[in-house]
Amino acid sequence: MKKVVLKNYVKGKPKETDMEVLTTSAIPLKVPEASNEAAMVVKNLYLSCDPYMRLLMTKHDEPPEFSYLSEFVPGEAIRSYGVCKVIDSTYPNFKAGDYVWGITGWEEYSLITNPEIFIKINHPELPLSYYTGILGMAGFTAYLGFHEVASPKKGEYVYVSAAAGAVGQLVGQFAKLMGCYVEMLKSKFGFDDAFNYKKEANLTLALKRFFPQGIDIYFENVGGAMLDAVLVNMRVRGRIAVCGMISQYNLDNPEPVYNTMVITPKRIRVEGFFVFDHFPSYGTFEEMAVSYIKENKITYVEDIVEGLENAPGALIGLYEGRNVGKQVVVVSRE
Amino acid sequence: MKKVVLKNYVKGKPKETDMEVLTTSAIPLKVPEASNEAAMVVKNLYLSCDPYMRLLMTKHDEPPEFSYLSEFVPGEAIRSYGVCKVIDSTYPNFKAGDYVWGITGWEEYSLITNPEIFIKINHPELPLSYYTGILGMAGFTAYLGFHEVASPKKGEYVYVSAAAGAVGQLVGQFAKLMGCYVEMLKSKFGFDDAFNYKKEANLTLALKRFFPQGIDIYFENVGGAMLDAVLVNMRVRGRIAVCGMISQYNLDNPEPVYNTMVITPKRIRVEGFFVFDHFPSYGTFEEMAVSYIKENKITYVEDIVEGLENAPGALIGLYEGRNVGKQVVVVSRE
Repeated sequence: MKKVVLKNYVKGKPKETDMEVLTTSAIPLKVPEASNEAAMVVKNLYLSCDPYMRLLMTKHDEPPEFSYLSEFVPGEAIRSYGVCKVIDSTYPNFKAGDYVWGITGWEEYSLITNPEIFIKINHPELPLSYYTGILGMAGFTAYLGFHEVASPKKGEYVYVSAAAGAVGQLVGQFAKLMGCYVEMLKSKFGFDDAFNYKKEANLTLALKRFFPQGIDIYFENVGGAMLDAVLVNMRVRGRIAVCGMISQYNLDNPEPVYNTMVITPKRIRVEGFFVFDHFPSYGTFEEMAVSYIKENKITYVEDIVEGLENAPGALIGLYEGRNVGKQVVVVSRE
Repeated sequence: MKKVVLKNYVKGKPKETDMEVLTTSAIPLKVPEASNEAAMVVKNLYLSCDPYMRLLMTKHDEPPEFSYLSEFVPGEAIRSYGVCKVIDSTYPNFKAGDYVWGITGWEEYSLITNPEIFIKINHPELPLSYYTGILGMAGFTAYLGFHEVASPKKGEYVYVSAAAGAVGQLVGQFAKLMGCYVEMLKSKFGFDDAFNYKKEANLTLALKRFFPQGIDIYFENVGGAMLDAVLVNMRVRGRIAVCGMISQYNLDNPEPVYNTMVITPKRIRVEGFFVFDHFPSYGTFEEMAVSYIKENKITYVEDIVEGLENAPGALIGLYEGRNVGKQVVVVSRE
């Protein structure tokens, strides 16, 4: 069985060579009889590459709130969201043959000992890979951040950074479907320009050009100098939904933010959120997104690479802005 | 008539000599008959010294949202919240003899052309000076920030910076009355230590010592390095009510904040607020605060100076941490 492991904890920018693809003996395709807890063996079909994974390549100072956010263990398979086929299960909610999504290993088959964090795929008639993105964590994140955290109103001005990524492309479309004016970073500076953007003053002016009236909602994916430039351009009573800060994940020392003083006079709300808190409302989101897809109201771009051998390169590409759309790794199509 | 004027716009730390006390001819004690708009002439009794006034000593880049937040005009009387007695009025809500509070001039008598921003004093049986503080903007600010913005729950851990100031002392008491655990900066480092606090690492550790469990609610009065240290010590789902950032008002370049990256994993909400948005709920607050005062549930400390001659020194004292409690200037006791 092939699997992708982290060789050592990473400092600074991660490289493909921080990971390696190993071939090991296969695991039994049955839940061990000795297990006291319900478990399942799954075949991994599609794996998701997400920016937050960089944070798991560094040893944490404190244990995280959710065990699946603990750092990767060097020598063991990397973990990410993925779409899986259940091969064997002692967990009553899933049976062999079901398609599910959740956090799995970067390997051909995985023994899952926390099946309760998996969600059954209700629409296998759509491409299964969509459950790594538009119907998975990325889509749900876009929905929560935009619809629930940012409380949008029709006609508002929405800015999305890292808009070529999995979440960004969806936030922009959800906002347009709601009748907001949307400007995305994608075609203007390109994701990687923004990522390396050092000239804060220019970024502030660029935003002023795109949003002469200012920004009501900022969907924050980037952080650092980008956040600083946005703060200056926010409108009164603006909201910043803080999904992540990809520009900061590879830095030993985070970039400073200088413009926090605008928060009071502009009565800005800055709010961080996590999908993990909100799974009970996943079903509502799934039905909304499935309708949008079936009615062709939404465009969804995937950047698909084939095979676990190519998974390390796909993940590293995220931090270099190489992907266009959601980065997916196919382990097996069925 | 005596009045206090700003001599010139201020750069950096303001000094007493940036202001001067002038004696000019008295104004007529009647609303001019030529006025088209309702107006009133008031006798100024008590004037409030508030940290935000530093921001009005510098020329603004953009016109502010509220005209009373436009910068002071060199040579004209400084403006602040104050308690006044109505001498003459063509505004139907107020008549001669009424006590009111609102933004007035640092002079003996003022012609008020926007009487609609004044509020009638419903409890003149209490010290009138309280309407510059506990029953005025400071108290209402403490109430809004703590009760409405921070959404406190019993037993939560509350940290108040600049707790010796007018707002800070009240937030701490409101929080205790609600059954929260409160730690204030006052006696620990003293207001002025915090103000000049340069050793961020120590501040972070000091907070960790006072709040080993972390902070649920931070009532932000200070900004800069203080905000940075607090972010590290916030608990999951913590709230930061951003009332102001006194440590930043005298700086040409604001201090950086490095720890914004905790906002997502801790799902922190940072929210700025202004009393000006909330005057419709002032009455609810006034009755709550009046009961607390009459039932002796709340301690309120005033730092009172006598006479307009001493007003510039009182205002400057705020930025040097000289005041203990609410800084008030008495122009006349009746």
